[in-house]
Formats: sequence, structure tokens, C-alpha cells
Amino acid sequence: MPKIVDHDKQRLLVAEAAWRVIRRDGMEQASVRNIALEAGISAGSMRHYFSTQSELLLYAMNLVSERVSNRITQMSFNSSPLENMKLLLLELLPSTDEKMAEMEVWYAFTAKSKSDPVLKEHANKVYNELRHAMATVITYLMELNLSRTDLDKELEIERLYALVDGLGIHAILRPDQMNTKIMEDILTMHLATLCRDAE
Amino acid sequence: MPKIVDHDKQRLLVAEAAWRVIRRDGMEQASVRNIALEAGISAGSMRHYFSTQSELLLYAMNLVSERVSNRITQMSFNSSPLENMKLLLLELLPSTDEKMAEMEVWYAFTAKSKSDPVLKEHANKVYNELRHAMATVITYLMELNLSRTDLDKELEIERLYALVDGLGIHAILRPDQMNTKIMEDILTMHLATLCRDAE
Repeated sequence: MPKIVDHDKQRLLVAEAAWRVIRRDGMEQASVRNIALEAGISAGSMRHYFSTQSELLLYAMNLVSERVSNRITQMSFNSSPLENMKLLLLELLPSTDEKMAEMEVWYAFTAKSKSDPVLKEHANKVYNELRHAMATVITYLMELNLSRTDLDKELEIERLYALVDGLGIHAILRPDQMNTKIMEDILTMHLATLCRDAE
Repeated sequence: MPKIVDHDKQRLLVAEAAWRVIRRDGMEQASVRNIALEAGISAGSMRHYFSTQSELLLYAMNLVSERVSNRITQMSFNSSPLENMKLLLLELLPSTDEKMAEMEVWYAFTAKSKSDPVLKEHANKVYNELRHAMATVITYLMELNLSRTDLDKELEIERLYALVDGLGIHAILRPDQMNTKIMEDILTMHLATLCRDAE
């Protein structure tokens, strides 16, 4: 079914063009017309791939979370528990150019989601998945008896989640001050303070 | 000089109208025309107050940071050192409706600043001021000999800054899960873990 393959491929190309427009010119410029221009196809033929701008933007937003989630599914954890948890959290942070691009686009989409119910619904789904990942990290440390015995589980989950999101945002907003080395050092330190050796 | 006073007052009213448009409809809708409509003045008379949309948006963005900074300047610190530091950090977080509005507008402006050099310059100034506030907290705890002796000062400053920004962003993006009580509890816990009693 080459036609369907081409269709899916073309939708992907359009979504990637949307990412480039958003990163370079801002969400304000992410009109169907500008995205068509960036993708090198006519504005008229855009309707074969997306019926509305809203559908296009949701697809482009979903592409970010799908890529992050695919990468995490493919991870193999062969190190110590603390190192494995650090690697998992680092995967959510913009530690490569590719992930930096994703994070920048994601940030623009979350800002827009405040006044766009369709994007908001997808954002909420992803927030829940991310919180679940944080809960997995904290629960794992507790179940292995690595963590301090006085941890407040729910608060630690929320603290870790806020820290990880804060680091990611600083990496895109303050790239001269926040880099992969510092993000990794902070995660290592943070996980260590949750554990018994830090008591 | 009543004319000058009126002029300043009018600029403020326009900026507050810009905030409302940004919060309700998103940054994409923050055109001079839409803001004039929201402020209840003619699009033509807008040029008496702001020459360009860029000037208007910079003024509206600056109004956020100015208000936060005025509130902090007016704070009085009458409690224990840890409590005082917690209150200072809480002042940067959206713990009231007014501060929630400021944080939402600020978030939209930082997203836009990625592709707008004028807003970016102001954002960078504010990031440096915020980092300075975090450094003040960590340095204060160290100088009073309250903190653990093994703290890595620079990493702790960045960790605290990322945590505070993460909490603020979660309060606006996940208001059902992140509220003032949880933010306050996390700050209390975080500061405690930096201190000797937590050793």
C-alpha cells in the first residue's frame, strides 16, 4: 500500500516543518500557510494531510511525546539501580541537539495549551505519564531498600518531577548556564540524597 | 503634570489588557488590534502609548518582573532563617490568584522569547536576578553554619533554581495536582535536607 505509506510520510514531513517554524519564528507564525511553505508543498494540498490547523498542531505535539516515549521503551538498563534511574531521567532532558529541538517545541506547545483545549488534553495525558515515570523512580528506590526510611513518597515524587522539568526548561532558556554535565551532576546528587548513604 | 500621569496610567491599562488577552486567548492573539479592543480604546490611539507591538509586549513582560521584584523588596523577614528563606522562595511562586496570573503571562513570554531577541534580552536579565536570589538563599544557609558541610554550592544553587521554576510551572500547567500547600511542603523539605539536622 505505497499510497498510505506516502501519506503517513508526508504527514511526518509536514509536522517536522511545523517544528522548524515554531522553533525559528515562534508559535505565532505556525499558520497552515507558513508550515506549507516550510514543507515545500502548496497550501492547497495541505488539506490532504490535515483538515485543520488544530489537527496539524496536535499531530506535531504528539510527535514529540511519541519520540520521547519510544526512546524510553527501547532503553536497556544494565547498570546499578541509581545509575539506571539517572539514565531514565536524563532521557527526559534535552541532552542532545535532537532532544533540545523536541524540548523547545514541547515548551511552545505547553504554553499554547493554556488557551487551547485540544492541546491541553494531550498535555494532561503526558503530564500524567511523566508523573508516573517519577513515581517509578521513587518506588524503585524504596522497594530496593536503597532510599532513606523517612522519605515522604508523594512529596518526593512531586519534588523530583518539578526538578526534572525545571532542569529541562533551564537547558532551553539558559543554555549558557545549564548544560548536560550540570543536569547529570544534579540528578546524581539528588538521587544520592534520597538514599541511605546520604544519611 | 496630570497629562504624564494619565499617560503612564493608560500604558498600564493597555499592558493589563495585553495580559488578559494572552491568558485567555494565547500569545498568538496578542496583536495591537486585539489588545486595543480589550483595553476599550481605538486601535488608532494605541500609537500614543506604544509605537510598536514589540514595545508594548516588552512593557507588559517587564510589568511582571517589576511586580515580583517590588513585592520581594517590601518583604520583612521576622522568622527563623529557614522560614525566612522559604517565604522568599514562595514569593516567586504562584501562591495567589494574582501571582498565578503573573506566572501564566510570564510563561507565555518566555516561550515567545525563544524567537524574539527583544523579549529574550529582558528574560536573560530576569534569569540572572532569579539565579542571584537562589545564590542568596544557599549562601545565607552556609554563612549561618546551618547547612551541611558537604554541600556543593554551585550545584545546590542550580538545583534550587530548577526546583523553584519547576514548581511554578507545574502550578500553572497542573493546577489540580500542584497547589500552594504542596509547593510550601516541598520547599520546607528541600531546605531541611540542605541543613545539618537532616544529616
